Amino acid sequence: MGMVGGGPGAMIGPIHRIAARLDGEIELVCGVFSRNPAQSQETAESLCLPAERSYQSYTSMMTAEAALPDGERMDFVVIVTPNDSHFAIAAEALKHGFHVLSDKPATRSLHEAEQLAEQLQKTGLLYGLTHTYAGYPMIKQARSLVASGALGEVRKVLVEYPQGWLAQSGVEAESKQAAWRLDPAQAGISSCVGDIGSHAAQLSEYVCGEPIAAICADLNAVVEGREMDDDATVLLRFENGARGVLIASQICAGEENNLRLRVYGDKGGLDWQQHEPNTLCLKWADRPAQILRAGGPGLSPLALANSRTPAGHPEGYLEAFANHYRNFAGQVRARLEGRDATEVERDVPGIADALRGMRFIEATVAASQSTQKWHHLQAIAALENK
Amino acid sequence: MGMVGGGPGAMIGPIHRIAARLDGEIELVCGVFSRNPAQSQETAESLCLPAERSYQSYTSMMTAEAALPDGERMDFVVIVTPNDSHFAIAAEALKHGFHVLSDKPATRSLHEAEQLAEQLQKTGLLYGLTHTYAGYPMIKQARSLVASGALGEVRKVLVEYPQGWLAQSGVEAESKQAAWRLDPAQAGISSCVGDIGSHAAQLSEYVCGEPIAAICADLNAVVEGREMDDDATVLLRFENGARGVLIASQICAGEENNLRLRVYGDKGGLDWQQHEPNTLCLKWADRPAQILRAGGPGLSPLALANSRTPAGHPEGYLEAFANHYRNFAGQVRARLEGRDATEVERDVPGIADALRGMRFIEATVAASQSTQKWHHLQAIAALENK
Amino acid sequence: MGMVGGGPGAMIGPIHRIAARLDGEIELVCGVFSRNPAQSQETAESLCLPAERSYQSYTSMMTAEAALPDGERMDFVVIVTPNDSHFAIAAEALKHGFHVLSDKPATRSLHEAEQLAEQLQKTGLLYGLTHTYAGYPMIKQARSLVASGALGEVRKVLVEYPQGWLAQSGVEAESKQAAWRLDPAQAGISSCVGDIGSHAAQLSEYVCGEPIAAICADLNAVVEGREMDDDATVLLRFENGARGVLIASQICAGEENNLRLRVYGDKGGLDWQQHEPNTLCLKWADRPAQILRAGGPGLSPLALANSRTPAGHPEGYLEAFANHYRNFAGQVRARLEGRDATEVERDVPGIADALRGMRFIEATVAASQSTQKWHHLQAIAALENK
Amino acid sequence: MGMVGGGPGAMIGPIHRIAARLDGEIELVCGVFSRNPAQSQETAESLCLPAERSYQSYTSMMTAEAALPDGERMDFVVIVTPNDSHFAIAAEALKHGFHVLSDKPATRSLHEAEQLAEQLQKTGLLYGLTHTYAGYPMIKQARSLVASGALGEVRKVLVEYPQGWLAQSGVEAESKQAAWRLDPAQAGISSCVGDIGSHAAQLSEYVCGEPIAAICADLNAVVEGREMDDDATVLLRFENGARGVLIASQICAGEENNLRLRVYGDKGGLDWQQHEPNTLCLKWADRPAQILRAGGPGLSPLALANSRTPAGHPEGYLEAFANHYRNFAGQVRARLEGRDATEVERDVPGIADALRGMRFIEATVAASQSTQKWHHLQAIAALENK
Repeated sequence: MGMVGGGPGAMIGPIHRIAARLDGEIELVCGVFSRNPAQSQETAESLCLPAERSYQSYTSMMTAEAALPDGERMDFVVIVTPNDSHFAIAAEALKHGFHVLSDKPATRSLHEAEQLAEQLQKTGLLYGLTHTYAGYPMIKQARSLVASGALGEVRKVLVEYPQGWLAQSGVEAESKQAAWRLDPAQAGISSCVGDIGSHAAQLSEYVCGEPIAAICADLNAVVEGREMDDDATVLLRFENGARGVLIASQICAGEENNLRLRVYGDKGGLDWQQHEPNTLCLKWADRPAQILRAGGPGLSPLALANSRTPAGHPEGYLEAFANHYRNFAGQVRARLEGRDATEVERDVPGIADALRGMRFIEATVAASQSTQKWHHLQAIAALENK
Repeated sequence: MGMVGGGPGAMIGPIHRIAARLDGEIELVCGVFSRNPAQSQETAESLCLPAERSYQSYTSMMTAEAALPDGERMDFVVIVTPNDSHFAIAAEALKHGFHVLSDKPATRSLHEAEQLAEQLQKTGLLYGLTHTYAGYPMIKQARSLVASGALGEVRKVLVEYPQGWLAQSGVEAESKQAAWRLDPAQAGISSCVGDIGSHAAQLSEYVCGEPIAAICADLNAVVEGREMDDDATVLLRFENGARGVLIASQICAGEENNLRLRVYGDKGGLDWQQHEPNTLCLKWADRPAQILRAGGPGLSPLALANSRTPAGHPEGYLEAFANHYRNFAGQVRARLEGRDATEVERDVPGIADALRGMRFIEATVAASQSTQKWHHLQAIAALENK
Repeated sequence: MGMVGGGPGAMIGPIHRIAARLDGEIELVCGVFSRNPAQSQETAESLCLPAERSYQSYTSMMTAEAALPDGERMDFVVIVTPNDSHFAIAAEALKHGFHVLSDKPATRSLHEAEQLAEQLQKTGLLYGLTHTYAGYPMIKQARSLVASGALGEVRKVLVEYPQGWLAQSGVEAESKQAAWRLDPAQAGISSCVGDIGSHAAQLSEYVCGEPIAAICADLNAVVEGREMDDDATVLLRFENGARGVLIASQICAGEENNLRLRVYGDKGGLDWQQHEPNTLCLKWADRPAQILRAGGPGLSPLALANSRTPAGHPEGYLEAFANHYRNFAGQVRARLEGRDATEVERDVPGIADALRGMRFIEATVAASQSTQKWHHLQAIAALENK
Repeated sequence: MGMVGGGPGAMIGPIHRIAARLDGEIELVCGVFSRNPAQSQETAESLCLPAERSYQSYTSMMTAEAALPDGERMDFVVIVTPNDSHFAIAAEALKHGFHVLSDKPATRSLHEAEQLAEQLQKTGLLYGLTHTYAGYPMIKQARSLVASGALGEVRKVLVEYPQGWLAQSGVEAESKQAAWRLDPAQAGISSCVGDIGSHAAQLSEYVCGEPIAAICADLNAVVEGREMDDDATVLLRFENGARGVLIASQICAGEENNLRLRVYGDKGGLDWQQHEPNTLCLKWADRPAQILRAGGPGLSPLALANSRTPAGHPEGYLEAFANHYRNFAGQVRARLEGRDATEVERDVPGIADALRGMRFIEATVAASQSTQKWHHLQAIAALENK
């Protein structure tokens, strides 16, 4: 694979690289890691890349790699830049025939995401979106459980993602991560929903197998001087009528990354928290609660395929990330081998998640400014085609 | 004390009696326990009440007790009937000069609550409302902490109360408790908000020391055929501008009584759950989280005064309930002794909670039917006077 | 009932009184609360006892009460004095025809316990020993589960009871509770095993339905200057061959009362902790773990009979204590009514626990001083007769 | 690096490979993965090793690699075979000038470990032993805390490692992992202590900074027909006089890998569990408990250096393993660069852990067969030299 982004000071770039190499099936062969050529070069060297495949720009990388012979050029491009450039880089990659694995959010706007979807349809290339949390084995298990009907008809969904790292004013001066996320020019129209609310929305849709259909949004810029939301609550209606609440916040002082999902059907409910990701609690209307554990008894094939270790050897965030890499690489390999991808390989968030995610971000920002309570999400042509 | 309600099959009446007797300072001396005289008599006998103080109706009880000499008649009346009769009984008690301790909700409507407030002001009698959860020592500690400014300015409040016991249709046929709560004639205009949402709202106001000022409400009758809400989400604005989310539901299959409150200021947050009520978790922006424990080090005088046992001997729901009894009895005793009640004695939910509670119930039901997002809660004259 | 002990400054006396009155079935009618007559009188008055039944000594109490007519005199005696006087008071009560409910340890020595057993056998009177923790509903459930064979043959038992309140030297100067427990004249031959290790041993035997048969003991006086153990580890063999470990310590700085019991059979294991007593975790060899909850689905009749509230309303230490009172009072009532006590009523720790407890304390103290590893517990004639 | 072991069906070999590659600083360049040449070859191919560096035997590998020019030959050897061959392979590697990183236990006997120590001293080569659990960041934090004196003088150590996977008889027929661990010819003289008890012992010594000085051991073969222990409890005395209990068991049905360590000083205690490895609980005698979290505030430099992600992104077992690889590779690199290894690089279990571990295994097996309670561990000459 080739990488765009992830130079000195980046947080998510190194994590992508760990995730890519964890299973030993993917090799980083080229990249451009920063808009600053010296910094890009520095990263390339630290990664032992050959000098000729440390590129000056993503455009030159696409051109040069495309010119390499089969088997030598990169198989796909990973995009780990700030949000504003995701689309342009993805578009360029597709233009040169490369599959794309992108950090989220996919683009800066739904319109861009629709263009991306169109380009994907035309080229037939593969696209993955690293909504990390959907990579956890117990989230796979949760999805399998809901799909199996074990919980009954889904009626209530609670998803929350409290963080505290942006609770104080002035953090952007101290942290590069904070700075770009709080800058509309780089992050887009939303900080909190764009950065973490969109993860929470995707997670709820992924587990429930139901898209969000309508919203009532309350977005706030709590810390003085912020131009975008740093706190959000969104009431949800899913297509099947289930009610939901999405809470995302960057100003819950003292919270780390406390993503939690609860889904209740008429027979029982499930409860998962990222802080202890290897545990899935099932609560039943008529019998004692159960604790499912990664690697333990009672798991679905999809959950088992996304674990590496026996029960009791905790896996975490990097392994969840690596699951997306391994599964996406499986899709790429299936193409190379001329076979259909397996169910496990196909189970990577993709362009449909990208479209729904960008729609969600735009709709919540708009709805939050409205005095009207409920807003139906607009239809997306590209989604209908899928 | 005298009791109205709590006959055979009642759930909350026996709990009130345990709570009243737990500390050995309150004696049940008379009562009418059911509209059915035989059933009332049966309960009176099981409680070893003298026959002449087992009354046929609450009106005859008030008249007869008022006619007894000082020191012999009951000191206050406890009301544990279904919601529809709370007000009439309280009004009758006050008319005859008796202090009142009432189960919640206080009345069937804000209008009734306002009449009650007026009567209280006229008579100068005492009134307590058993919002049980405000009786837990670690909730007292939470209130002390917020008041002390330790968390900084309160910005975000999350309160949730998921239950699952009404998740299936037809439960009202099997459970007397379910039957009256799902019957508008007895329960009032709301099931879920009236029964548990009002507890959650009171708890958040009690801990934050801030009243709710505006709401956006999403109430649902999820199980087919229900006339009232069995599920509710309410976005909140507190008077100081803090944002909140209140989730109450009776259809979260598998949940017991999972009341949880989180409050975040700009310096840190607190987290409390009724399932493990003796623990209060404090999370800080700049230092490790702390675990405060009932009876343990670092507690406020108010929290300590509401524990009976050394740290590590868990107290629970009955003790929280008993705290309200003990503290209310302290108010009554202070009257009898002609002294001011102490801070601990005064710390019982009262008519202000009653007024805010009834306003909250009415406002959420109305707001839920509106297409408008936000609704400011109307001013209450009786609250201004307090 | 009548009470001996529990005067000003006592910790366990007031807890006994709460436990006795909690269910409204037991009335305290007389007592002697301190060796100091003024202090005893003070307590009697605070409890509204009639002056003539506030006695000067337990001997005068037994004599006077025995002289009262049927239905008027106390039905049983509760003993809540420091350990050294338990036996003499119990013996006196039995001599005058009163049933006895005693705080633990039952006596100061196995020899005394054997005399007590003999006296009980002769008189046919009832005897209960308040090993509090055996009163928790989820401990009842644990006992039911083991007895049902659900876990298979019990193989491994882990019971631990770490406390930290005696971790510092000099605490006896600040705390009356610490002072008598660290004084061999009042506490007997052991502090840690006598006070809490004996609770842990009883709990393990109660749940497993198996007596301890052999021990290997490591008792330590960790804090300088202590005459008795403040820390103990005891390896166990149960009669069925199961291996066990008992850890009790008063010097685990920072621990409250962290009693925990784990029992493993060949099919699964159970895990219970006093800090969250309403939860019992079951782990299975071949399927997901389960969480049983007080008042919830899947409980045995014995467990259900020892809960007062619906699931999700936590009960605690006082209610566990009250279960022993309620059940023992049931035994007394059965006698008065001339019927057999029910299984629930009989389920109170009694003289067999007293005998095994005193044997355990003496044996661990002796074994700890030996260089030999294993010590078989000696047979107790009085136990064989039961 | 080159690898010996880890062919088809191996559990720990693939985990070593993930750990080695996770940080992108170590490359697997050669190996012999099975005694079966076809299986070894199969693994080599799956790892994309060049055919000429997929060796037939570890002896041929050492010879061939040693003959390669500087910079081309492997830098160190990793040993992941069953226990019986660890020593011979390590000895061969050292003979050919290669540093060694070995799975534990280091050898089959203390005598072998002493020979290894001697050879290391002669050659001056590096040796690491992958006691995985010592690689967790919060274990590093625990070690830093104890060393800092924050807990006061260590007095009590509780370490436990219950597993359930060998609870049923006949598992060795179904699991290759079980088969070799229960076969004395491959596993050595102990199953439970050798496999997991030695981990627990090492962890307690690592965190406390104190070696175990004396033991009282109770080892059992619980499941019928077993030749070695599958269950062990060992009472401990550390050199500073602290008392300890080590519980390790493979027959606690339903348990996964529930390693837990508690250490109490006179000022407070710490509590860590592998099931939630990113949390370290500190309990204090005189103030509220604290929760330290990986990546969060309040951590030591050593703990921080062993995390990759910000707080709230859980790392797990593979990352703990990778810490040993990264740190050991740092030692190797320091040699190549002619500099002293840093404190973080040196912080890898080594030959001293190997010696103490083998002594512990031999001593517990011997002590368990003795009727004498306490056994002092014999002095090890090679340890004195360190």
